[in-house]
Amino acid sequence: MQPVNIGIAGLGTVGAGTVNVLVRNAGEISRRAGRDINVTHAAVRDLSRTRDCDTTGLCLGDDPFALAGNDAIDVLVETIGGTDVAREVVLKAIASGKHVVTANKALIAIHGNEIFSAAQRQGTIVAFEAAVAGGIPVIKSIREGLAGNRIEWLAGIINGTCNYILTEMRDHGSDFAAVLKQAQALGYAEADPDFDVGGIDAAHKLTILASIAFGIPLQFERVYCEGISHITPDDLRYADEMDMQIKHLGIARGTDYGIELRVHPTLLPKKRLLANVDGVMNAIQIYGDAVGSTLHCGAGAGAEPTASAVVADLVDVVRALTTDPGNRVPHLAFQPGLLADVPVLAMEQTETAYYLRLAVLNRPGVLAEITRILGDSNISIEAILQKGSGKHEQVLPVIIVTQQTREAGINEALMKIERLDSVKAPVVRIRMEQFA
Amino acid sequence: MQPVNIGIAGLGTVGAGTVNVLVRNAGEISRRAGRDINVTHAAVRDLSRTRDCDTTGLCLGDDPFALAGNDAIDVLVETIGGTDVAREVVLKAIASGKHVVTANKALIAIHGNEIFSAAQRQGTIVAFEAAVAGGIPVIKSIREGLAGNRIEWLAGIINGTCNYILTEMRDHGSDFAAVLKQAQALGYAEADPDFDVGGIDAAHKLTILASIAFGIPLQFERVYCEGISHITPDDLRYADEMDMQIKHLGIARGTDYGIELRVHPTLLPKKRLLANVDGVMNAIQIYGDAVGSTLHCGAGAGAEPTASAVVADLVDVVRALTTDPGNRVPHLAFQPGLLADVPVLAMEQTETAYYLRLAVLNRPGVLAEITRILGDSNISIEAILQKGSGKHEQVLPVIIVTQQTREAGINEALMKIERLDSVKAPVVRIRMEQFA
Repeated sequence: MQPVNIGIAGLGTVGAGTVNVLVRNAGEISRRAGRDINVTHAAVRDLSRTRDCDTTGLCLGDDPFALAGNDAIDVLVETIGGTDVAREVVLKAIASGKHVVTANKALIAIHGNEIFSAAQRQGTIVAFEAAVAGGIPVIKSIREGLAGNRIEWLAGIINGTCNYILTEMRDHGSDFAAVLKQAQALGYAEADPDFDVGGIDAAHKLTILASIAFGIPLQFERVYCEGISHITPDDLRYADEMDMQIKHLGIARGTDYGIELRVHPTLLPKKRLLANVDGVMNAIQIYGDAVGSTLHCGAGAGAEPTASAVVADLVDVVRALTTDPGNRVPHLAFQPGLLADVPVLAMEQTETAYYLRLAVLNRPGVLAEITRILGDSNISIEAILQKGSGKHEQVLPVIIVTQQTREAGINEALMKIERLDSVKAPVVRIRMEQFA
Repeated sequence: MQPVNIGIAGLGTVGAGTVNVLVRNAGEISRRAGRDINVTHAAVRDLSRTRDCDTTGLCLGDDPFALAGNDAIDVLVETIGGTDVAREVVLKAIASGKHVVTANKALIAIHGNEIFSAAQRQGTIVAFEAAVAGGIPVIKSIREGLAGNRIEWLAGIINGTCNYILTEMRDHGSDFAAVLKQAQALGYAEADPDFDVGGIDAAHKLTILASIAFGIPLQFERVYCEGISHITPDDLRYADEMDMQIKHLGIARGTDYGIELRVHPTLLPKKRLLANVDGVMNAIQIYGDAVGSTLHCGAGAGAEPTASAVVADLVDVVRALTTDPGNRVPHLAFQPGLLADVPVLAMEQTETAYYLRLAVLNRPGVLAEITRILGDSNISIEAILQKGSGKHEQVLPVIIVTQQTREAGINEALMKIERLDSVKAPVVRIRMEQFA
């Protein structure tokens, strides 16, 4: 089938990230979408700037309006940011019959009602998964995955800057101002940080989440908004003493009288998962009447996590453009003819670290024998834990934690170890997971 | 538009749950899908049994094959379970041109390749979100939400019975056998528990997750599978001493040589979110090259959480059936004309509990004055924390945690409190969230 041509307005962090992901994963993306997705055009403000992506073969211009009206593209990706030019460019693209993918939360929160009406009239799609919580597919989860529920409540850590600052203040007892400076140096906070630490960015995202969860129009101006600049290290310490964490949350709750929409620092009991989402990570918890509580966690910002959401939206648009039954969302995610013939490894070929529990006679030289066998199989030991009183000739548990190694090697070593006179039971092994 | 008619094969836990959710949330579901979704027919094994749902107005029969071929229905929901009859009923429905929604993980893991080929030929949809991790929309998240990524690794707590048993063994130091009995009494484990505690159920789900994540055919027979019956309370204690948790995971990992597919008890460092998912909850962590790590957590079983996924699939099918642009996934989840005019509450009308930090002169009677003001505004106190050395006439922080109350009442009380001579700074308030 014909490839789908994409024009990107703005090649900053998110725009360049989108190009990089589309190029790097072109094969997998086209196996999923059923068609190639090519970035053919881009519009940038300053043509002389160097980019974070390869622009070879790209038609590069400096007029986003010309791009929005260009018949050579099927979909416009808007990563200009802001609400003025972005709004006009998006409306022009819609008027020209193009589908639009945007990462712009302010644009959707403030001008979404107008933009969606225009798209509705034109029969085009405006997709905005990247506008909330970066790479976490939370718009899709609420709008489609939880479509059977009456949503009663949702709360999210939806501003990574605030979460990073509160986490650092808690862990190091530092002042808000000091950590803010450090966050700016690391690129986690803008030079003008008000948008983040004042809660406005979170309020934009909450506006969008509440609308799709409760089926109400976007109404940013009704969100109560409080930032984190008044929180002191003492507050975090007092909270800790009460087994609580302070998180900056956006909260939407349905009540009998109406809907609460509020952004503010919030106390949460430590044992809740949401209270344990630290640093720049984002997480949204949603309570639906049928499903109960679900939590969706991941990177809320950054070039590639945001690009992940932009590309997912592009795949959605391409699947929707191609409405014949063979090009719906494929049952197994990839197009039926394009499943890969990758071998599944035998368990002996897999690699993990191991927890080994041995029942061992307390007798001189036993540990030396065991560790020699492990060494002969090239298995390095991370830790040994010997339990119990230590009476001579008594059977005691010994715990050995190995470093990363092949299952085949462990099998061989354990066979030899279990043959030792001083080992009194089959060894219990539990694999460790390094990637979680 | 015409309603979409559903036939359900099997009215057990999930089937009855699906009817209940569709009826209870009919208004919201139809606002999202753009059409009414009505269960008109059902087939059950024993017509004389009482049901967990209202069957008034339902055409009830006892022949699932007749149902699968019945032209009065558009979509067949299969909740029979097992892999024999279910397979034949699903194939018959597909052959009759019907779309199918199923919660049956064994069916998909074992016969999915055959079923999807048949559906592909017929141009019908087979949806199976409910087959993995109950109400968590993880199939959708991987297949659509993360479609821009090369998935490198995924790991999941995908059997609630195993997770419940390991959690109880850890918290109470009980034996596997004792906790298993207790889980059976609570209905968390089947009379024949091998399917769950032997890891087979998790292997079915891992088969499905790996296929959609890596774009490989379903190959259940290649999954390495180990249960939890050999884990002792000692193992959980030793793990705890090493700051680890033992979780029963399904893991799929891409390597240069092939794909690892394995189900086994696994050690995880306690500080990882996945290690803190306890009880019957499920969670899947996915690592994609662009998005990094995302975590998806929620109820993995039960009537209504599973029904939540079945209904989401039905909404997907209905949206796909109605391919005109006005009936794609609506931008704001609900159909444009059907957004609700629910009031957004003013902040004064919202209710939470409060953490209050006061700077107070250490002087007799001060606390009495403050608590009297709170009492006058009908605000109950949950806890008071007085900090510092306690020197007379020194300014000390006092922390007061209130019970649930109206923001308006707190505003009024704080205004009075801040007027007291002995209160030396504006009161800092942080709201608490009871629902997280």
